[in-house]
Amino acid sequence: MLIMLKSLHLTSKMATIEKLFQPVQPKNDDTGNKITVVGTGQVGMAAVFSMLTQGVTNNIALVDVMEDKLKGEMMDLQHGSAFMRNAKIQASTDYAISAGSKICVVTAGVRQREGESRLDLVQRNTDVLKIIIPQLVKYSPDAILMIASNPVDILTYVTWKISGLPKHRVIGSGTNLDSARFRYLLSDKLSVAATSCHGYIIGEHGDSSVPVWSGVNVAGVRLSDINPKIGTESDTENWKELHEMVVKSAYEVIKLKGYTSWAIGLSLAQLARAILTNASSVHPVSTYLKGEHGIEEDVFLSLPCVLGSSGVSDVIRQPLKENELGQLRKSANLMAQVQAGIKF
Amino acid sequence: MLIMLKSLHLTSKMATIEKLFQPVQPKNDDTGNKITVVGTGQVGMAAVFSMLTQGVTNNIALVDVMEDKLKGEMMDLQHGSAFMRNAKIQASTDYAISAGSKICVVTAGVRQREGESRLDLVQRNTDVLKIIIPQLVKYSPDAILMIASNPVDILTYVTWKISGLPKHRVIGSGTNLDSARFRYLLSDKLSVAATSCHGYIIGEHGDSSVPVWSGVNVAGVRLSDINPKIGTESDTENWKELHEMVVKSAYEVIKLKGYTSWAIGLSLAQLARAILTNASSVHPVSTYLKGEHGIEEDVFLSLPCVLGSSGVSDVIRQPLKENELGQLRKSANLMAQVQAGIKF
Amino acid sequence: MLIMLKSLHLTSKMATIEKLFQPVQPKNDDTGNKITVVGTGQVGMAAVFSMLTQGVTNNIALVDVMEDKLKGEMMDLQHGSAFMRNAKIQASTDYAISAGSKICVVTAGVRQREGESRLDLVQRNTDVLKIIIPQLVKYSPDAILMIASNPVDILTYVTWKISGLPKHRVIGSGTNLDSARFRYLLSDKLSVAATSCHGYIIGEHGDSSVPVWSGVNVAGVRLSDINPKIGTESDTENWKELHEMVVKSAYEVIKLKGYTSWAIGLSLAQLARAILTNASSVHPVSTYLKGEHGIEEDVFLSLPCVLGSSGVSDVIRQPLKENELGQLRKSANLMAQVQAGIKF
Amino acid sequence: MLIMLKSLHLTSKMATIEKLFQPVQPKNDDTGNKITVVGTGQVGMAAVFSMLTQGVTNNIALVDVMEDKLKGEMMDLQHGSAFMRNAKIQASTDYAISAGSKICVVTAGVRQREGESRLDLVQRNTDVLKIIIPQLVKYSPDAILMIASNPVDILTYVTWKISGLPKHRVIGSGTNLDSARFRYLLSDKLSVAATSCHGYIIGEHGDSSVPVWSGVNVAGVRLSDINPKIGTESDTENWKELHEMVVKSAYEVIKLKGYTSWAIGLSLAQLARAILTNASSVHPVSTYLKGEHGIEEDVFLSLPCVLGSSGVSDVIRQPLKENELGQLRKSANLMAQVQAGIKF
Repeated sequence: MLIMLKSLHLTSKMATIEKLFQPVQPKNDDTGNKITVVGTGQVGMAAVFSMLTQGVTNNIALVDVMEDKLKGEMMDLQHGSAFMRNAKIQASTDYAISAGSKICVVTAGVRQREGESRLDLVQRNTDVLKIIIPQLVKYSPDAILMIASNPVDILTYVTWKISGLPKHRVIGSGTNLDSARFRYLLSDKLSVAATSCHGYIIGEHGDSSVPVWSGVNVAGVRLSDINPKIGTESDTENWKELHEMVVKSAYEVIKLKGYTSWAIGLSLAQLARAILTNASSVHPVSTYLKGEHGIEEDVFLSLPCVLGSSGVSDVIRQPLKENELGQLRKSANLMAQVQAGIKF
Repeated sequence: MLIMLKSLHLTSKMATIEKLFQPVQPKNDDTGNKITVVGTGQVGMAAVFSMLTQGVTNNIALVDVMEDKLKGEMMDLQHGSAFMRNAKIQASTDYAISAGSKICVVTAGVRQREGESRLDLVQRNTDVLKIIIPQLVKYSPDAILMIASNPVDILTYVTWKISGLPKHRVIGSGTNLDSARFRYLLSDKLSVAATSCHGYIIGEHGDSSVPVWSGVNVAGVRLSDINPKIGTESDTENWKELHEMVVKSAYEVIKLKGYTSWAIGLSLAQLARAILTNASSVHPVSTYLKGEHGIEEDVFLSLPCVLGSSGVSDVIRQPLKENELGQLRKSANLMAQVQAGIKF
Repeated sequence: MLIMLKSLHLTSKMATIEKLFQPVQPKNDDTGNKITVVGTGQVGMAAVFSMLTQGVTNNIALVDVMEDKLKGEMMDLQHGSAFMRNAKIQASTDYAISAGSKICVVTAGVRQREGESRLDLVQRNTDVLKIIIPQLVKYSPDAILMIASNPVDILTYVTWKISGLPKHRVIGSGTNLDSARFRYLLSDKLSVAATSCHGYIIGEHGDSSVPVWSGVNVAGVRLSDINPKIGTESDTENWKELHEMVVKSAYEVIKLKGYTSWAIGLSLAQLARAILTNASSVHPVSTYLKGEHGIEEDVFLSLPCVLGSSGVSDVIRQPLKENELGQLRKSANLMAQVQAGIKF
Repeated sequence: MLIMLKSLHLTSKMATIEKLFQPVQPKNDDTGNKITVVGTGQVGMAAVFSMLTQGVTNNIALVDVMEDKLKGEMMDLQHGSAFMRNAKIQASTDYAISAGSKICVVTAGVRQREGESRLDLVQRNTDVLKIIIPQLVKYSPDAILMIASNPVDILTYVTWKISGLPKHRVIGSGTNLDSARFRYLLSDKLSVAATSCHGYIIGEHGDSSVPVWSGVNVAGVRLSDINPKIGTESDTENWKELHEMVVKSAYEVIKLKGYTSWAIGLSLAQLARAILTNASSVHPVSTYLKGEHGIEEDVFLSLPCVLGSSGVSDVIRQPLKENELGQLRKSANLMAQVQAGIKF
């Protein structure tokens, strides 16, 4: 089904319209900043709304299998056109609507069933991606793919495998959100703006993520220079609690409101802006890691990456401590095991 | 219950923090643009997110009776702090959190039960407003009150009665959204940006709203000058269909996605910006109408109003046709009847 | 001369840099929204700064013949990079720097000498455009050309002739600024936001411009319906004074501060945004007019145009009064006479 | 002289206006974000234009002694109202126009004459500030004062002395600009966005500024950890050249284009935004330093400060090296000597 977007004026033009306009040249559809978002759940829609209201793009294509929800979200956004700057909203269950996108964001996926093993969940989502990804690549062969579905690191690997794209063009939203939560908690503790609190969480998105305490700083002043035990068990000030709160906070928000949406939506909008503006700015996202930090598996995990219009141009080489390296490698190992069981 | 926002640093300061900062002067809390939103449902949260991402305010207080949902939404927004500009998000079930707001937006309210009469619904929402409004006025005696709960026109009247505020400081979101939907549909039909399609829907928000076809124009060119029958039954081009679609579209979006959120959120954000920036810009909002267009009842209906930091400074006097006046007066009459039955 | 922009890292990479980055994929230069501005005088620079600070583009190429001024402006903007969003500023006397622009804005040109005839001035500026335009077209064959040099209407015609481009891709900044001044003065008189005061000035930019009083409205309410004599000699309220003030204000600002910059810069930024976002929004700009309003000459004058990524897609057909038509045709006639004397 | 802003509608209202509007409540003037800028030279106007186009404020008062220039700049900005969001621009030679400002920015001052001693220059500018500052404090007793006139550190001290304000409310623009230039040059060398290159230049604005190499980092990775000699004479990669270029670049821009404007304008707009939004973000600005880093004089120099609506709430304590401390103290000493000669 293709939702008809412009049904009204496909009919022969009315006298009123003909009298109002002297046509000069047919309009074209190009804006050079089209973004497709697959999945109109809370994450997908928060991402779309962040992108539109913050001016990241004014050209959105929505794709979902749920026709009603899809059309409802499209209409609701279109009704806001007069409040936004030249927003163009399209939606369809047919991927043709995504043609010519600069970025395709995938937020679709199934949720874990009670008692379901991680591998079983990954397999079910792989089966979903086997439908989505080839369609996206078909209609936007030059796009950057950005994956937000969970477990994000493995599904970014799966997307890379299915897509056949070079690794720099497949990105997982990864720990960009974990790092933002970390910076908010630092900000709250230090009474300094989150934008002035610098710190990176790397590795696997979620429970096994790794806070790089050595890099945490305000105005270039490392907290670990003031408090060398920071982040460790033996730190009497218990700063490691902040990382524990980051890990717990996703669960807590889901328990409290039923899902997470605003922060992940803003995170995806920030990454999309970096790509569309060819910013060469640095963000912790899930990227192909074989060869970095002694990782020997074909895995995607988050490290600070330089993002621009070609996707990931560079990975930042952080000096890591033994325990940080150990945790990264452990994650890589576990992921490789899960990945080995996936049927493509 | 008061959610503790800054629990961490209320404890005695740690050595790390003491070494990092040389205190000069205590921080204060004032930003001069605080907005309280009561109700963290889809409408309230879309409004908050529109305001934050579009830079209307960076200082939001959320109030709701559902503690879990409230805390979940607060945390989710706070986790996005590093992606926004200096956002300050507070939340509590206690209205003390709203103190010093410039604008209080009310999106809370109960929904119509099956078989419930309009008056019964209004009475139940009046009972809700009897709790909310005095608290808002107590903590922000100088604020502008903006009502988005439905039926919006009557509830704006109810708010005005309960609050005891002068009429210019109580505003209903009214037909600002209907007008935006109308402009989008015009835009779609004319293939011209919604921001360049001008037209106002006035009167009662919803089914009985009145499109003022005489004012519909592009670049100052009235469509009614080109097509004098525009909007009437005898117009062979059937432009009146656009107004019918406006009326139907709220129902359609609710049927399709379960609720409306993005467009009403953007509408509220636009009105809030007009007030906070003291814009003197013109928007169709629900305002006290006795004395205008021959209306003799104490009712609130939408007309184009000049909005600024004192609320409504002027109402624009549109020359209306007999049938438009008739519809306005009919709405006023019906509302007065319903209002007469409300127990305050 | 080509100013070397990235001289530092063209040298072989340093050990520090090699240790910091793991390269993944070469960066590319594309942002899809490149704008070239020719002329780094007050108008050109105000336009560039408006575009950068308002997020119209983040990719600017500056071209001028004055090497020092050019390099100084480039450096000054670059020094502000950390305060802006991913701005990329390039500059050169060589037009190769402009390659791949979506829009080329021409603000260069000589000023009228004392005693110089209008034709002599036009001829001298034609000689300047004969150098600039072919270079712009060579390096950005698909760009929209936007002319701000004065006399803007004739120079837009000259650019169209020299460029060989179809008429929809050559636009003069025209009366977009005159209309903005008009709306400000209306706003001041009515105490309503300029964005809520609608009115168009059309025709020749400057002394002979034509205010279309019939379209002047607030919220769709025509002032001419309230005051039928508005804008005429016999109007006792003397509204025509507003148009006289528009005409005088350019001279007055020049007399007072030596030049005009901010308003024309903002005007050019608005037009550029409409094009880059493919907005289909309506703006009064100088466009090819033969065939409209009975004009039979090959001239460019301002009428409300629908602007998007293909340039002018439609001209809005305003119903004009006899005296308005007469003034338009008189301007067209005079311009055709001047144009007849130009040596290409 | 007070420039009359609203002369037109001070006259008795016209019939047209009376018919258009039904007055409800007088408008008020308050926006809660008013900024006064003293001095309409290139720096002052670039600051104003940055603030307006970036939405830092929509309420500007301009003050200068040159009536013509002042009125010209005011008119030019007002003419752009329809392109901006609800901008309110006022101007006068009378400081009454500045009443109720949240921030007063001083960009006025005389330039060094050939052969003039530094003390003579300081004395002449002190004499200027003796006129300006008491007027600003009189009309906006709660404002934050921000000084951009040069030599900025001494003139910030002078302002503090004249104003009688507590030290947290007097701020010099200081090395916020030097740091931005440094970050741009790092960005250019590393091919990473300036917003992702972190580094602070502190101390005296200009020739004697001190780059804190120990804090320079990308994604928390200190360059000095990779290259321990960075910034020193013995560094074979010659990174200290970047600081030399920062020092030279102000002179170079002035030599090339005659003045600096855009970058300093953006710097002032950033600081103003931090204050108006009560951001608690960190910026290197000139602040009262007695007691920090062993400085014993009553001097203002730049250190990273936490800025919010109360001005400077905290100074960040950077661990500095001996040579960095030495340079700071030397600057403090020289400044104290100059200050000792000033006649208040």
